[in-house]
Amino acid sequence: MNKQTSFEGLEVGYDVPALPGMDAKDIQTPSLVLDLDALERNIKKMGDFAKSHGMRHRVHGKMHKSVDVALLQEKLGGSCGVCCQKVSEAEVFARGGIKDVLVSNQVRQPEKIDRLARIPKLGARAICCVDDIANVADLSEAAVRHGTQIECLVEIDVGAGRCGVQYGQPVVKLAKAIDAADGLKFAGIQAYQGAMQHLDSYEERQAKTQIAIGQVKESVDLLKAAGLECDIVGGGGTGSYYFESASGVFNELQCGSYAFMDADYGRILDKDGNRIDQGEWENALFILTSVMSHAKADKAIVDAGLKAQSVDSGLPTIYGRDDVTYVKCSDEHGVVSDPKGALKVNDKLHLVPGHCDPTCNVHDWYVGVRNGKVETLWPVSARGKAY
Amino acid sequence: MNKQTSFEGLEVGYDVPALPGMDAKDIQTPSLVLDLDALERNIKKMGDFAKSHGMRHRVHGKMHKSVDVALLQEKLGGSCGVCCQKVSEAEVFARGGIKDVLVSNQVRQPEKIDRLARIPKLGARAICCVDDIANVADLSEAAVRHGTQIECLVEIDVGAGRCGVQYGQPVVKLAKAIDAADGLKFAGIQAYQGAMQHLDSYEERQAKTQIAIGQVKESVDLLKAAGLECDIVGGGGTGSYYFESASGVFNELQCGSYAFMDADYGRILDKDGNRIDQGEWENALFILTSVMSHAKADKAIVDAGLKAQSVDSGLPTIYGRDDVTYVKCSDEHGVVSDPKGALKVNDKLHLVPGHCDPTCNVHDWYVGVRNGKVETLWPVSARGKAY
Repeated sequence: MNKQTSFEGLEVGYDVPALPGMDAKDIQTPSLVLDLDALERNIKKMGDFAKSHGMRHRVHGKMHKSVDVALLQEKLGGSCGVCCQKVSEAEVFARGGIKDVLVSNQVRQPEKIDRLARIPKLGARAICCVDDIANVADLSEAAVRHGTQIECLVEIDVGAGRCGVQYGQPVVKLAKAIDAADGLKFAGIQAYQGAMQHLDSYEERQAKTQIAIGQVKESVDLLKAAGLECDIVGGGGTGSYYFESASGVFNELQCGSYAFMDADYGRILDKDGNRIDQGEWENALFILTSVMSHAKADKAIVDAGLKAQSVDSGLPTIYGRDDVTYVKCSDEHGVVSDPKGALKVNDKLHLVPGHCDPTCNVHDWYVGVRNGKVETLWPVSARGKAY
Repeated sequence: MNKQTSFEGLEVGYDVPALPGMDAKDIQTPSLVLDLDALERNIKKMGDFAKSHGMRHRVHGKMHKSVDVALLQEKLGGSCGVCCQKVSEAEVFARGGIKDVLVSNQVRQPEKIDRLARIPKLGARAICCVDDIANVADLSEAAVRHGTQIECLVEIDVGAGRCGVQYGQPVVKLAKAIDAADGLKFAGIQAYQGAMQHLDSYEERQAKTQIAIGQVKESVDLLKAAGLECDIVGGGGTGSYYFESASGVFNELQCGSYAFMDADYGRILDKDGNRIDQGEWENALFILTSVMSHAKADKAIVDAGLKAQSVDSGLPTIYGRDDVTYVKCSDEHGVVSDPKGALKVNDKLHLVPGHCDPTCNVHDWYVGVRNGKVETLWPVSARGKAY
């Protein structure tokens, strides 16, 4: 039902970068390529970790925006559902067959609240975050109007400095309001510490996560004393999931980037001081790019620029090559330093994007490759779903 | 034929951010909004400038990627055609009714060369750039195979440091090879100085453009001496078009950003020392965003993050407001400093994107607004066409 079963009428190089069955060397560039073996190993590994630590894993769908990847995470990684950041994304996942969907964000516009309230009619559990008591009445009204139920997590700001209330009594106050509202169900706590996931040092990440865990524990205990149980205590990312899993407080992980990896995440260190892309996770996502000009002896110009990636977290690295370096990115071009003149026109390079999430969001397709062949083509199903 | 005449079946908030006829206040966020009055004035102004200076204007379609905007530039600005950076973009413009299309870039992959050679069959003149003699035979072979003609500009690197040959004799050598090749026509010179368009100082931009003009003039003279006339001597952007227009050498401008403006371009200064977004050009493009959380008194969280824009050239500014500032951008959120607590949840802000080109490329639709009403909805026709 989600698998793209027909590619009839789609033109390679206009509509799609490749078609299943093609040789990988014939993929049009720039395009997003997935190493399916690496992807499956990453998914299985995180699934096994969660299971062995008694955690549910609600995979972060905002990273890949792909129903196919989410279903693979369910199948191979035993994930319990997805989280995402927008109602329009949640609709894509629910329509695609994901039965348990959390919008790990605030939903405030009346039209979006209305759409959220209709998600259960698509066959999925609908959960969202709340950080303002004024939101409760609006959510309740919409759920009642549609005869559905919206489950609500109180979001705590555990250090990211964005949305979320202070831990402790503000959480209890909000939880009680949710619990009392028709059409809503208080479902627990959202506590994602986004500000420290990318710190290089394991110890620094640990220290900041411990603070978050303490705040969450205090809140959970206060809720319990007030007679409110948390079905979900959710948080944790690729840079911290082991801390939340050992906390005894969290019961759901929300990792996203582990599945694809990127250059910025790859640089952070594990407890032994090794980069996490050197053993813990494999690079499964690449921007395939071609050399399109080499008019200067020491410089190759490639066809992946700002329209093929986001450089907010730094430039891409070039996978498996230490003789050439991606040094500059403009709208349509990348400048690759090639001091030895190792590259020639039409040579292909595998770039590891600086930041996978916004990079995936500029592409329409993932080209899944195994053993040198294009095995599958997956749409970036929720691409552009920013509403 | 290009106007989207039917929106049947499209859901506001899922497929589209708005529908024609709606009040502007009901547009879903984040979305791209065009001030149609400002856009039309910008387009007319540049068209009038080009005409009064005896220049053709080949508008840069890679900026907006929109057939509708290109047709408006033709109608109101008298543009002679478009340039764009990818063959797939060129196909979109040709299919959309633009009759004269330049891929102002190198085309090297065999599949792309083949597609380029078929563009005349879509009813458009097809032009591309060349900076390598090895490319000539491939282009020629494809044109002959399809019984079409590809016109070729020799690209000179006049300072951007990307593609392009050295000025002078290398240009002549390449032009002769093109001229001698079946199916190809030598059409002139491409000389875009991309590296200085964004320098703040008018005098610095002038100095760098004068160097480029000198190099182009020398090349044109050498070509003439060799019996080769340039139909097109093209270049110039929003930060330099007056220099190329006064050069007596260039005959085609290739401006893009003037039509929409952005925060990075807006900062550069005109000859009187005024920012170019304070008189020369109007901001016509905005990212409409909503406040979705205000859990901290001095900080509003808005719904436009890295999935709604590119921050490669800096953060967006907030149009018409000096009391609030966009200070941080993460995947789905923007942090707005609101020291006086001026904002409340669901308030809307008009962001001026840091860089219009890659920002437009993440959106599917332009919402055209006039007098507080949604007048039109234009697809970002070539969005994602990066091949």
